[in-house]
Amino acid sequence: MYAQWTGKTSESIGFAYELRRVDKDELEEAIIEANDDDNVDGIMIYFPVFGNRQDQYLQQVVSKDKDVEGLSHLYVQNMYHNVRYLDKEQTQKSVLPCTPLAVVKILEHIGVYNTVLPYGNRLYGKTITVVNRSEIVGRPLAALLANDGAVVYSVDITGIQKFTRGDGLKLKRHHVQDIDIELKEAASQSDVIVTGVPSPDYKFPVEYIKYGAVCVNFSSEKNFPPEVKERASLYVPSIGKVTISMLLRNLLRLINNKANRKN
Amino acid sequence: MYAQWTGKTSESIGFAYELRRVDKDELEEAIIEANDDDNVDGIMIYFPVFGNRQDQYLQQVVSKDKDVEGLSHLYVQNMYHNVRYLDKEQTQKSVLPCTPLAVVKILEHIGVYNTVLPYGNRLYGKTITVVNRSEIVGRPLAALLANDGAVVYSVDITGIQKFTRGDGLKLKRHHVQDIDIELKEAASQSDVIVTGVPSPDYKFPVEYIKYGAVCVNFSSEKNFPPEVKERASLYVPSIGKVTISMLLRNLLRLINNKANRKN
Repeated sequence: MYAQWTGKTSESIGFAYELRRVDKDELEEAIIEANDDDNVDGIMIYFPVFGNRQDQYLQQVVSKDKDVEGLSHLYVQNMYHNVRYLDKEQTQKSVLPCTPLAVVKILEHIGVYNTVLPYGNRLYGKTITVVNRSEIVGRPLAALLANDGAVVYSVDITGIQKFTRGDGLKLKRHHVQDIDIELKEAASQSDVIVTGVPSPDYKFPVEYIKYGAVCVNFSSEKNFPPEVKERASLYVPSIGKVTISMLLRNLLRLINNKANRKN
Repeated sequence: MYAQWTGKTSESIGFAYELRRVDKDELEEAIIEANDDDNVDGIMIYFPVFGNRQDQYLQQVVSKDKDVEGLSHLYVQNMYHNVRYLDKEQTQKSVLPCTPLAVVKILEHIGVYNTVLPYGNRLYGKTITVVNRSEIVGRPLAALLANDGAVVYSVDITGIQKFTRGDGLKLKRHHVQDIDIELKEAASQSDVIVTGVPSPDYKFPVEYIKYGAVCVNFSSEKNFPPEVKERASLYVPSIGKVTISMLLRNLLRLINNKANRKN
């Protein structure tokens, strides 16, 4: 279904989209072919394929020059380190992982980022709880938000971590600490609550939400019950369409980077 | 304990070994420091650190030029594709992941590789069962053995796959197929059985082993019961010491590669 949406969205705004179906044992070769195919500007794989760490191996086979999802190790490492360009001359931009980026763009759009503050610090003063610390979305998202100045409580089943740039944003990039705090306390301080728990049974406890908070869910399951609307000032139940836009945004970056490499 | 052994072995044969202990939240910075430290030739991380995919992220932060474990994506991809050098001029060798490499070297040493056959095909005619298909050891090992000419049955809880270069070794590198076969049948055809199940409860069924087969266990648990000796012609209960030798072998490669880059 995500493939259909991606195809429709892409073509509706003028990108050529092609879905290639291959047997899982031939996928690696197919990726390498696409890496080498001059007609292909961007590649995404629909996971799960093997449903284990072999999937992460396959993701890294995608050339970074065609990685619209921003999951190449180099891009992820740049993101954690707040490094925005691939070259010293700053002609080629690093690509950001598209799901966390979609959350950031939504928070910008709905006014959580304060545009009066300097670029890069626009979440200063904001406290955000992110429920999910996966390597694909939760941890990168917490890092991005903290890099932009927020205090972020990153929640997963093993406990809660605090991501910050320190008092007065004295650090260049975020720092992480394990902290001993309950979800209730983290949530009650939070201006924004972001959830991403891939389970139909999980529901965020509405009574923990501060009145007027912004609630965003990036899971394909509904992590907030309907009563969230009685507490939240703004509620974003899903982010799939924005994620697809971010894929296309990343594709444009890759095309620009390619052009700039040739110059 | 593995750290102690590595230290002792390294120093006993003239390598300087230094154990750096850092808080898990400072490990990434410590790796980057070691990457940039001219006095450091090789780096290994003792996992688990976070015990989840963040550990794989950290592994990729290690510079490929100092990756004694051979776990950088580039090395792993080269291994699967039977690519042995990093450069066209063939002055810099690709590094192989050290645990699967240790198994290969043991099989060479105990005569499973037939040195009369051409290099690269020395397992032709051999059938090998590998129980474990992890991305760290089992799958790379099955690939290495198949690349060298064996028919390999790769077993894990989701089923059995066959890794081969095809009849008459017509393929340049191994191909993988899902097959419908029971462990009993695979084992009874196998000249070599390699196990790596990290569980104290797992025991390979001795009655499946062909009389005279070679049995090798790379798990830290004893995957074969004592009766294995009544069936096997050779039994290798653990490979830890050889794995450490492979770390040092890889370190030498990295040092040579560095020297060759300078020339």
